[in-house]
Amino acid sequence: MNIDVIISADHIKEEYLDDKIVVVIDMLRATSVITTALANGAKEVIPMLTVEEAFNKKKELSEKGLDALLGGERRAIKIEGFDFTNSPLEYTRDQIEGKSIILSTTNGTRAINLSLKASKILIGAMINAKSVIDMINENSSDIVFINSGTNGQFSMDDFICSGYMINLLCENNIHNLSDIAKTAKYIYENNKNIVNFIKEARHYNILKDLNLQDDLEYCCKKDILDIVPVVNKNTGVISVINK
Amino acid sequence: MNIDVIISADHIKEEYLDDKIVVVIDMLRATSVITTALANGAKEVIPMLTVEEAFNKKKELSEKGLDALLGGERRAIKIEGFDFTNSPLEYTRDQIEGKSIILSTTNGTRAINLSLKASKILIGAMINAKSVIDMINENSSDIVFINSGTNGQFSMDDFICSGYMINLLCENNIHNLSDIAKTAKYIYENNKNIVNFIKEARHYNILKDLNLQDDLEYCCKKDILDIVPVVNKNTGVISVINK
Repeated sequence: MNIDVIISADHIKEEYLDDKIVVVIDMLRATSVITTALANGAKEVIPMLTVEEAFNKKKELSEKGLDALLGGERRAIKIEGFDFTNSPLEYTRDQIEGKSIILSTTNGTRAINLSLKASKILIGAMINAKSVIDMINENSSDIVFINSGTNGQFSMDDFICSGYMINLLCENNIHNLSDIAKTAKYIYENNKNIVNFIKEARHYNILKDLNLQDDLEYCCKKDILDIVPVVNKNTGVISVINK
Repeated sequence: MNIDVIISADHIKEEYLDDKIVVVIDMLRATSVITTALANGAKEVIPMLTVEEAFNKKKELSEKGLDALLGGERRAIKIEGFDFTNSPLEYTRDQIEGKSIILSTTNGTRAINLSLKASKILIGAMINAKSVIDMINENSSDIVFINSGTNGQFSMDDFICSGYMINLLCENNIHNLSDIAKTAKYIYENNKNIVNFIKEARHYNILKDLNLQDDLEYCCKKDILDIVPVVNKNTGVISVINK
């Protein structure tokens, strides 16, 4: 299969996604939050681009008698009136089991919304990388790893996370890697302790300065969750199909 | 200063270039050709997007009594009716001294044309990297390395060439590097013999398969020419200001 990486949500072109499986990555922290929430029993995650849309969606669900929780961030900070920040550690089973989570984040939500033309959209992070690759290996489609990036910019953390997944994909099979996919793989293979590399990343240091060291440690763990969130192409809602 | 890298001509946004010095890189081979031609005494290099525009420009100059030579490639192959291919080794002093070269290539020419809104546009390659950095160090503007890439895609060769220049910039000064600039620098610093890295690059292998091994060896040499081609923002014409 052909394997490629798009380094920022800004570079997504719809026509490029035809017939491809997309893995959306925003390891710090949106896709780590989505994966954790669903692993801890959330019914679904509903990504919303704006804070206003998030509040409207909660109202809409409430009018149908459905209760939803609001999570997300702007500039890595909690949004007023929201139940959760963008810290995966807040999404514990006792808080969220069986509930819908409406999530609005700066980068990850946008990347997911721009990926809906792909044949399949998976949500990936370090914490569920191996499960994502296992699911990909059941298919023969071309793969594009979409790095959400930070405010349109390349992000070292998402890039090495892509590199880890490409490394896993190439363990037992020969694939056709684009130059950027080869470079991501190279970066991971030379930094298997990924913190050595991403400690230089701008976004990592923003989170560190906000005393979010526990989040960073958690998000950098490999393969601790065995689920793959899948985006419903028609509704944009994210849930777990097989577990 | 702030240092950034744009990984493909496709990602250039004019508004991003304001007040920045841009270094356009297409080391395999357009910017190596331009640098070599000017180092060997060509009067100027006139980049043209299409083959038709190149022929028209030659006619226009001819009607003014000015003689120009045509150089370039499509899919790395010589264009019918052109004087030179895109091999820097053809642009010898006896062939080109004092002459205007009209150049049309697939990637580099396009990147140059899309960069004209920058405050200054320099042409860089491995063969003149140190001279480019010396010129940059005379200014305090922010720098963007524009990798021409290959058909809109990231190219490992241009990326490591950017990394080499960033490495030189950071030798004696502290700069503010974006994540992608840090990654390019990392790649170079771990592959100072750059062929080890770019031998995996798709475009490198296309040229190798065309028996262009001599071109590849030449383009990968560091700092063998001490000139910096500069693009005239109004005319797009490239010449050497200081030598």
